[in-house]
Amino acid sequence: MKKTVLDGNSATVHIAYAFCETAFIYPITPSSPMAELADIWSASGKKNLFDTTPTILQMQAESGVSGALHGALTCGALSTTFTCSQGLLLMLPDMYKIAGELLPTVIHASARALSTHALSIFGDHQDVMACRQTGFAMLCSSSVQETMDFALIAHIATLQSSVPFLHFFDGFRTSHEATTIEEIDYSTIKNLLPEKAIARFKNRALTPDSPVQRGTAQNEDIYFQNREACNPYYAKTPSIVQQTMNDLAQITGRKYRLFDYFGSPDAECVVVMMGSGAYAMKETVERLRLEGEKVGVIIVRLYRPFDGESFVATLPTTCKKIAVLDRTKEAGAVGEPLYTDICAVGKEYNLSIQIYGGRYGVGQKEFTPTCCLAVIKNLQSVTPKNHFTVGINDDISFTSLDLPTDFSLEYPDRISCKFYGLGSDGTVGANKNSVKIIGENTNLFTQAYFFYDSRKSGGVTVSHLRLSKTPIQSPYLIDTPDFVACHNPSYLQRYDMLKGIKENGVFLLNCPWTELADLEKNLPNEAKRKIAEKNLDFFVIDATKIAEEVGLKGRTSTVMQTAFFFVNPFIMPFETAKEKLKEELKKKFLKKGETVVNNNLLSVDKTQNAVKKIEYPSSWKGVENIKSAMPKTEYYDTFMSPILKLEGDSLPVSAFSPDGSVPTNTSKLEKHGVAQLLPKWIPDNCIQCNQCAFVCPHATIRPFLTREETPETFVTINAIGIQDAKFRIQVSPYDCMGCGVCANECPSKEKALVMTQSTEILDRESGNWDFAQSLQAPQNPLKKTTVKGSQFQKPLFEFSYACAGCGETPYIRLLTQLFGEKLIIANATG
Amino acid sequence: MKKTVLDGNSATVHIAYAFCETAFIYPITPSSPMAELADIWSASGKKNLFDTTPTILQMQAESGVSGALHGALTCGALSTTFTCSQGLLLMLPDMYKIAGELLPTVIHASARALSTHALSIFGDHQDVMACRQTGFAMLCSSSVQETMDFALIAHIATLQSSVPFLHFFDGFRTSHEATTIEEIDYSTIKNLLPEKAIARFKNRALTPDSPVQRGTAQNEDIYFQNREACNPYYAKTPSIVQQTMNDLAQITGRKYRLFDYFGSPDAECVVVMMGSGAYAMKETVERLRLEGEKVGVIIVRLYRPFDGESFVATLPTTCKKIAVLDRTKEAGAVGEPLYTDICAVGKEYNLSIQIYGGRYGVGQKEFTPTCCLAVIKNLQSVTPKNHFTVGINDDISFTSLDLPTDFSLEYPDRISCKFYGLGSDGTVGANKNSVKIIGENTNLFTQAYFFYDSRKSGGVTVSHLRLSKTPIQSPYLIDTPDFVACHNPSYLQRYDMLKGIKENGVFLLNCPWTELADLEKNLPNEAKRKIAEKNLDFFVIDATKIAEEVGLKGRTSTVMQTAFFFVNPFIMPFETAKEKLKEELKKKFLKKGETVVNNNLLSVDKTQNAVKKIEYPSSWKGVENIKSAMPKTEYYDTFMSPILKLEGDSLPVSAFSPDGSVPTNTSKLEKHGVAQLLPKWIPDNCIQCNQCAFVCPHATIRPFLTREETPETFVTINAIGIQDAKFRIQVSPYDCMGCGVCANECPSKEKALVMTQSTEILDRESGNWDFAQSLQAPQNPLKKTTVKGSQFQKPLFEFSYACAGCGETPYIRLLTQLFGEKLIIANATG
Repeated sequence: MKKTVLDGNSATVHIAYAFCETAFIYPITPSSPMAELADIWSASGKKNLFDTTPTILQMQAESGVSGALHGALTCGALSTTFTCSQGLLLMLPDMYKIAGELLPTVIHASARALSTHALSIFGDHQDVMACRQTGFAMLCSSSVQETMDFALIAHIATLQSSVPFLHFFDGFRTSHEATTIEEIDYSTIKNLLPEKAIARFKNRALTPDSPVQRGTAQNEDIYFQNREACNPYYAKTPSIVQQTMNDLAQITGRKYRLFDYFGSPDAECVVVMMGSGAYAMKETVERLRLEGEKVGVIIVRLYRPFDGESFVATLPTTCKKIAVLDRTKEAGAVGEPLYTDICAVGKEYNLSIQIYGGRYGVGQKEFTPTCCLAVIKNLQSVTPKNHFTVGINDDISFTSLDLPTDFSLEYPDRISCKFYGLGSDGTVGANKNSVKIIGENTNLFTQAYFFYDSRKSGGVTVSHLRLSKTPIQSPYLIDTPDFVACHNPSYLQRYDMLKGIKENGVFLLNCPWTELADLEKNLPNEAKRKIAEKNLDFFVIDATKIAEEVGLKGRTSTVMQTAFFFVNPFIMPFETAKEKLKEELKKKFLKKGETVVNNNLLSVDKTQNAVKKIEYPSSWKGVENIKSAMPKTEYYDTFMSPILKLEGDSLPVSAFSPDGSVPTNTSKLEKHGVAQLLPKWIPDNCIQCNQCAFVCPHATIRPFLTREETPETFVTINAIGIQDAKFRIQVSPYDCMGCGVCANECPSKEKALVMTQSTEILDRESGNWDFAQSLQAPQNPLKKTTVKGSQFQKPLFEFSYACAGCGETPYIRLLTQLFGEKLIIANATG
Repeated sequence: MKKTVLDGNSATVHIAYAFCETAFIYPITPSSPMAELADIWSASGKKNLFDTTPTILQMQAESGVSGALHGALTCGALSTTFTCSQGLLLMLPDMYKIAGELLPTVIHASARALSTHALSIFGDHQDVMACRQTGFAMLCSSSVQETMDFALIAHIATLQSSVPFLHFFDGFRTSHEATTIEEIDYSTIKNLLPEKAIARFKNRALTPDSPVQRGTAQNEDIYFQNREACNPYYAKTPSIVQQTMNDLAQITGRKYRLFDYFGSPDAECVVVMMGSGAYAMKETVERLRLEGEKVGVIIVRLYRPFDGESFVATLPTTCKKIAVLDRTKEAGAVGEPLYTDICAVGKEYNLSIQIYGGRYGVGQKEFTPTCCLAVIKNLQSVTPKNHFTVGINDDISFTSLDLPTDFSLEYPDRISCKFYGLGSDGTVGANKNSVKIIGENTNLFTQAYFFYDSRKSGGVTVSHLRLSKTPIQSPYLIDTPDFVACHNPSYLQRYDMLKGIKENGVFLLNCPWTELADLEKNLPNEAKRKIAEKNLDFFVIDATKIAEEVGLKGRTSTVMQTAFFFVNPFIMPFETAKEKLKEELKKKFLKKGETVVNNNLLSVDKTQNAVKKIEYPSSWKGVENIKSAMPKTEYYDTFMSPILKLEGDSLPVSAFSPDGSVPTNTSKLEKHGVAQLLPKWIPDNCIQCNQCAFVCPHATIRPFLTREETPETFVTINAIGIQDAKFRIQVSPYDCMGCGVCANECPSKEKALVMTQSTEILDRESGNWDFAQSLQAPQNPLKKTTVKGSQFQKPLFEFSYACAGCGETPYIRLLTQLFGEKLIIANATG
């Protein structure tokens, strides 16, 4: 079977596409890639198992998706969809109908948190748990390999059982983790196709040729009886799923059971859970066993129909205590759902076992081996806490477990790498690519997970890459990396990137300072000290410069990717890496044209010689932190600042308003300061068209008009068309993302804006921006304006010309374009 | 406090209206009356507690309602809504937001079944149980009085706790039961208003004056902590609810607890449940206690937040076994939700009690004292069944409990009356009116429940009235009536109306046969035998005739209502009843004009002398049933026929297709035969315009064209405009509802249709209808037609003139109207 590198979404849709004749979609993060891939494949004519191309239809919302799905199933089309979160909730009304009519289908959900006090795009089980009462079977994949295996099992079992399936896995953590897995090819699947069940489904299709009625109205006399008629279908489903698992195991060798147990055969403490976190627990349990602990973990595969008998059979007879972990929160409930279910099973089977429940990983809170150990230690204690939380500090209701310090699972055959990039700077894409190269050209297993901060373009990204000679299952972020790359020098001021880095590790920094003297001056003392204390191999490269030289201004990802391979030659020989890298770049940039491809290839070649190993002095060990001089408020210091430093995990429950409300007017406190290139205004070339301000996607470049005195650095020119006023284009340097759209757009013959190394102008322009903010706004913002020189005798129109400082001057440009030279604006102040 | 007769919906909206400044509505059965009443009150300017008139807004769907509700709450408006079933499910996505933001509101739900294998408009807990994980508090009213009390408690407690409430009660059974209750007036409520909590809510409103942000996006670092910040609010809610219950008790004397226990203090078997059925269980338990049984029932009031400690404290310490009854079904779950919760509590508190779960009342399956006894007997048995069902015969999965025979709770001070009417014939309205008259003018407590078959107009209605000197809580239908009225003689052939009637009871029949000889001829033998065997007082009245005489053709309800008071003078003196009845009629028909009012008053006066007591011979005791000669198929005999006879309860699970599908083309088997007046065609007057067929709302009157030989009774006339063809208007007498729209519409100077006593023409026309069906359809249904005599040379158009028998002749009329005399249709066959 083919070894490949896929993420959970891609692995799932590989199967779902195989089985569907039609899919209805309404993409929602983090399930979107499934819908998008299905759509792309359909558009390109890719065939399913039945040698037809599925029809993929985007609806108006998830409610439309479920309605269409119900209709298509009723008419005998093998159909599916992909969704999560509140999108999945919109399907609930139809899910009852689909289950009630025993229509086989699979909804694939990359499980995601729900919008409650706040929105979260991240993974937990709140959404899928809201579906547990619908009559859908629920099958949970806890790893990327399982998404492929269980998607297949779900599609087969739904046809065999006529019970619809919700196949789910952890959003982002599993849906977006790219890992080395075995791909099950379509010819293999064809051997597993339940032909009879498909024929039975097709025969049930509504057709005028053999009409039946569905969806009738039933009264008190008969509804209940008919509602109970489905029982045998649900009773059979667990054994159908187990049989399908067995059939698959014959082919793949991967054996699954409805509940899988890992740990000591004579365990006294057992943890029960499902989803990716279960493998963190498995790793922890395996480590503890080495120390002689009698512990184990049960991973729930089939959550509905819940087969209590199988669960009890899976439990070691020696078990005395169970901790059930739920990745959800149901305020006001007796307990979270899996916990309550296990309690009920315990009661039904008269198990003399103490059962404790806890919440973890809500909103994708990191669930690490440390958390796992805390759960087990709690369970082993004399009076275990019930209804606990783990992974946070709950200083309000005191539900949280104390986390043991200094526990971390180390795997000696494993290399862990972290890359800090800027959203949409290409870092994530390059790392996905690296994983593919490594996965396909070495015998290493790979795992790549990408941390996003949901700010999309311009936010921080941290790529977590693990490489190992043995398969990797660790479903948590890297906290003790061997290698750290910083793709953006501004992060030196913002993030503690070297936290946890191993002794003798490697730090690769993109920065303009390639000489020790410059580094001495510009590197924060904290970084210097860590580099020296951990005795790191410290490499720098001015990737920004290379990118500019080869004509890829601002696009540093290829350079950094090459540098990664260069400083880590033990992964694969650098020459091989270079060759493979070039092949991939050709494919990747094919659509962007030959120039882009060639520029990228050139940057690969240039990197090698530009990487510089820094021999730093041992004096770096003793340097002390210098306090930063950012603007401050109490809210900023205690709340925003930790979050911005990626240390939000440390905020305790008491730091939050219970209803999720936060103060306004705080984005001014959140300065990114990430632009490596800033627009520099050249007054002499400026034609005052203000198009730069108009196009700036982050509203950080603005024209200002004033009649006030201005300081020397605040250079102005005489305003065109506005009496006695002075004009200036001002950038907010710490807000600017450095995209360069303003400079591109500048229509002046000699460009009035030029992208420049930010270090040169950062502080000065920051002061100018602050001054610009202080310029007085006009007292009467709504002024009548008259148009002189036109053929009209009366004022042509009035317009609100509030304050040039507010970015409204672009309106002048529009007016000018409209009326050309005929327009002179009088009486405007600002 | 005022004693009044209200149903659950009205009682609820009385409170909800008091507390709301705005309500968003999208009416859905059986919650509609709440939305409608609020809307009517608002339109009429009725004030709430704050002396303002609430704004009631109808949205585009329930999803819009919840969105608007969330918005209004965010802006500080006290808001509410009313819903149920899939409508409630559409609110789920927003319910998480409302709860997450700790916004106080109450959603009032008249709990209803969900559409699964089939739609059901009736009551159970499937919908509200789908909300148990949202973070809404859930408060359940189990009687009409409680809907008023608990609606009030919910509105106060939500403000005190900031946790939103879902206040629910059983759809129809509670929402539509009209019962004598105590009304809490607005001045009393004002004393209970939590002023501080309201101020706190208002202060949290989003306003530009003191802006905060809500609904932000949170990442993995902080979402979980913030999600836990609401814990103290949920922890406090149970005690807030209990305190509010206590405060209310001070005023009303009605004491409630979070869990209320009824039964032996030393009970060994305890049933746990919520909703109306709990009072059937309470009655049963109280009866069994008289026999020395150690049994009890816990009624759950506050289901969320679930206060385990209170539950355990409520449970008698002697309890050995618990049966938990759920009015819902969650296929594939470990057990139904209340059962699972109680199991978890049992496990948490180490209760050494055996717990068994069962389903009842799904889709409003009747839950009677017999069912209650079955539950208790099962619990008392050595090996109780778990996951049982009660009230049905499950011959597939064998979940159902055997029902004990001959168990019925009799209350000697109680009179039970049943009235069989036709949907929209006025019977239900008249009975509601009677209950009001009795409730307000006697010291009797009343209870009225109306059984509908969801066919709306034309279906059967059975009104169940109980009268008693003590309060009535029996939440189930009457099976041993003292009095039965039949408002439609056709029901004699269809329903076993006298089933269970008591010895020496009263039977009041509306029929055209007022002489014994006619009754001998027309009364089914089964009815005769029961009348005689039970020694009934048998009254007849030709209400149809009286209604016609006073100018209220077909409207018999006032006559029958008067007759009810006449034959039951012990309820109140007939003269008093007459007087009150007339007062009510004046109010009721005010809007319909003086004539209608006077006609109704006249019918009251005429009734007295028209009621005739029949002295029947004792030979009626021995008469044998005569088999009916209706058309038959196996499907009809085994499935449709029991349902149509109101005996659908007896169908076992095996009678149903598990996916809810049923054959088509079966409505032809379902003959109502309810029309007391049928249209009689007078050929000589007919102008063949076919307007009668065009307007018939049930498509039971149709024109036929033929060239075939016809039998003598099948009178025809020469067709106008169609060569050699004969024409006839034919009614389907067993499908006709007798509404008379056809006769009204007939434009002929001398009416060609006259409404006539159906007995006169039923059989003959039934034969004619069958013959008409046999008329041959044309072989080529799509014919080209040419238009002669017009100015057009070519055919003007083609049209499908398939078969006059199919009712398509109205098209000819349309064409004729369009082209006048210019149109002659040639070549038409039919």
